Amino acid sequence: MKTLTVELGARRYPIYIGSGLLAQPDIFRQHIKSTQVLVVTNDTVAALYLQPVLNQLQDYRVESLILPDGEQFKTLDTLSTVFDKLLAAKFSRNATLIALGGGVIGDMGGFAAACYQRGIAFIQIPTTLLAQVDSSVGGKTGVNHPLGKNMIGAFYQPQCVIADADVLDTLDDRQLSAGLAEVIKYGLIRDIEFFVWLENNMEALLARDKTALAYAIEQSCVNKAHIVAEDETESGVRATLNLGHTFGHAIETGSGYGHYLHGEAVAIGTCQAADLSRRKGWLTEADVDRIISLFMKARLPVIPPAQMTTEQFLELMAVDKKNVDGQIRVILLKTIGAALLPIDVESSLLQQTLNSYGRH
Amino acid sequence: MKTLTVELGARRYPIYIGSGLLAQPDIFRQHIKSTQVLVVTNDTVAALYLQPVLNQLQDYRVESLILPDGEQFKTLDTLSTVFDKLLAAKFSRNATLIALGGGVIGDMGGFAAACYQRGIAFIQIPTTLLAQVDSSVGGKTGVNHPLGKNMIGAFYQPQCVIADADVLDTLDDRQLSAGLAEVIKYGLIRDIEFFVWLENNMEALLARDKTALAYAIEQSCVNKAHIVAEDETESGVRATLNLGHTFGHAIETGSGYGHYLHGEAVAIGTCQAADLSRRKGWLTEADVDRIISLFMKARLPVIPPAQMTTEQFLELMAVDKKNVDGQIRVILLKTIGAALLPIDVESSLLQQTLNSYGRH
Repeated sequence: MKTLTVELGARRYPIYIGSGLLAQPDIFRQHIKSTQVLVVTNDTVAALYLQPVLNQLQDYRVESLILPDGEQFKTLDTLSTVFDKLLAAKFSRNATLIALGGGVIGDMGGFAAACYQRGIAFIQIPTTLLAQVDSSVGGKTGVNHPLGKNMIGAFYQPQCVIADADVLDTLDDRQLSAGLAEVIKYGLIRDIEFFVWLENNMEALLARDKTALAYAIEQSCVNKAHIVAEDETESGVRATLNLGHTFGHAIETGSGYGHYLHGEAVAIGTCQAADLSRRKGWLTEADVDRIISLFMKARLPVIPPAQMTTEQFLELMAVDKKNVDGQIRVILLKTIGAALLPIDVESSLLQQTLNSYGRH
Repeated sequence: MKTLTVELGARRYPIYIGSGLLAQPDIFRQHIKSTQVLVVTNDTVAALYLQPVLNQLQDYRVESLILPDGEQFKTLDTLSTVFDKLLAAKFSRNATLIALGGGVIGDMGGFAAACYQRGIAFIQIPTTLLAQVDSSVGGKTGVNHPLGKNMIGAFYQPQCVIADADVLDTLDDRQLSAGLAEVIKYGLIRDIEFFVWLENNMEALLARDKTALAYAIEQSCVNKAHIVAEDETESGVRATLNLGHTFGHAIETGSGYGHYLHGEAVAIGTCQAADLSRRKGWLTEADVDRIISLFMKARLPVIPPAQMTTEQFLELMAVDKKNVDGQIRVILLKTIGAALLPIDVESSLLQQTLNSYGRH
């Protein structure tokens, strides 16, 4: 087992990465402060991993809540059912919530923990590659709104993150690829060596080679933990983690939550951001091709949905959290391995990307 | 104008207390960072004070949202309409939300600001005595749940609080009295001199004597600001502000939100807490009588609703935020002017209070 630490002063916490972690009751014991524990999961994950987790929690008064699986359920209404459960169980402010699932469960579980009685402890057990390398680390929690993704939420840090590589055995291929989109992101924004490693090891990752996967998870978490420690509430460098996300969120919202996986939309959005970076004169055509190739190698989509118009993109991108006073801001690449802070982009160039990239 | 400061390090902020403050655009200008402003208010307050506030905001892009008036609307559903408004207006993370109203508007507006895009700036303009002396100061925000009051929320501090004593001119008598319940609380928990002052000046307060009201507001805010600065997230002394609230919240929830005003329920609950403090051997019968008399002088109810049973109280008090692992904890008085931290109370004594106090 490897232990990384997210250095956030009084809110610092460990990320445990390894195999067989769900069978180690000590990790749970160390981070649960009271007798009351609620495990929040979804129907897909519950069938596989709820019982193994409950087995480690026999000393506690445990309740579990199984939510429907999918981004389309990441809403205030679903969140409300978590509060119903906590209150029906009369759980107090010193209860612990365990979020067992992918990014949707982690974001909602974390936000429920942030709001219940103005904040209870929570533990992230990410069960998708995407959640292990990205969404479970850093304390971004929240739900979607019909008009924008992740628009309602809180910065709220967990007690710990337990990333058990074994749970990836049951992940379907599409979810594995979606996670790789965020893994590639770390290479693009700040780690050229990792990007090259990914170019050379993508087949091993897709073949679920344990050593390769463990390295990719660790390297992603190292990068993420550095950025979060430097800028917890995204007033600066943390925004670079949103490479491709302004386009990607528009794709998710515009095509209906649940149609694209988050990582798939981010893959497409990152290719659009790369195209725009080329139009700014920073990336070469060869760079853009190299980026698109790696996403394709990871079996990810790279072309925006045909039915989404430029106007729809602009409308949806206008509600992005990085925007200032209505001006659309995006994360672009200076080179492969170096992202820039959010910049206002000339609307003529943005429109060129939206009109041209992937439109034939 | 008096300016008090809530000392919370990087989150420190001023409370402005005085007359004619809503007509001073400089206060707004100083605390609004961007062009986007949403004023959230209710239908009662809007008719009186929305236009005067909007008059000070002509340099901004202002939207306003008028919610229905009443504790029964302090819900996740109403909160959701604030997000709808912010997103429809495409407001960004640097927008400012102004909560113009009583405790319900302040709690909901503050919670909406805490959650929108994971946190935007907000300003409290409390328009009831209760909000001016208590709920607008200290950053407790949130909404109710059918199973418990203020069960969903966040600690989130405003940019400033603007307490304009002039707005109390239009407050109805019942609301004025409800505010006095929280004013009396400060005397009871930590300020015996203020308690005596209240005994001597209650008629002046009820007659809306401006000097008396201004003194009561200031003294209450001084007490509140001290406590909040010492213990922002209620891990210690802040809990004493909940004197009477464990009983009071049960009364509010049990009789249906909107039936009792919060201050009315707190008045009754504080008398119950005083009765229980006597049973613990701390207060004398004369102390309890003196407390009940002051609440009655303030034209507040002091007897629990006849239809609420002891069992219902116990059931509702079991979900209070101060509880630990299911054990009911309450704030009691050692003497008039000195509250104790939350304590587990022998259920036999609690039942005696619930069975006897106010039951004839």
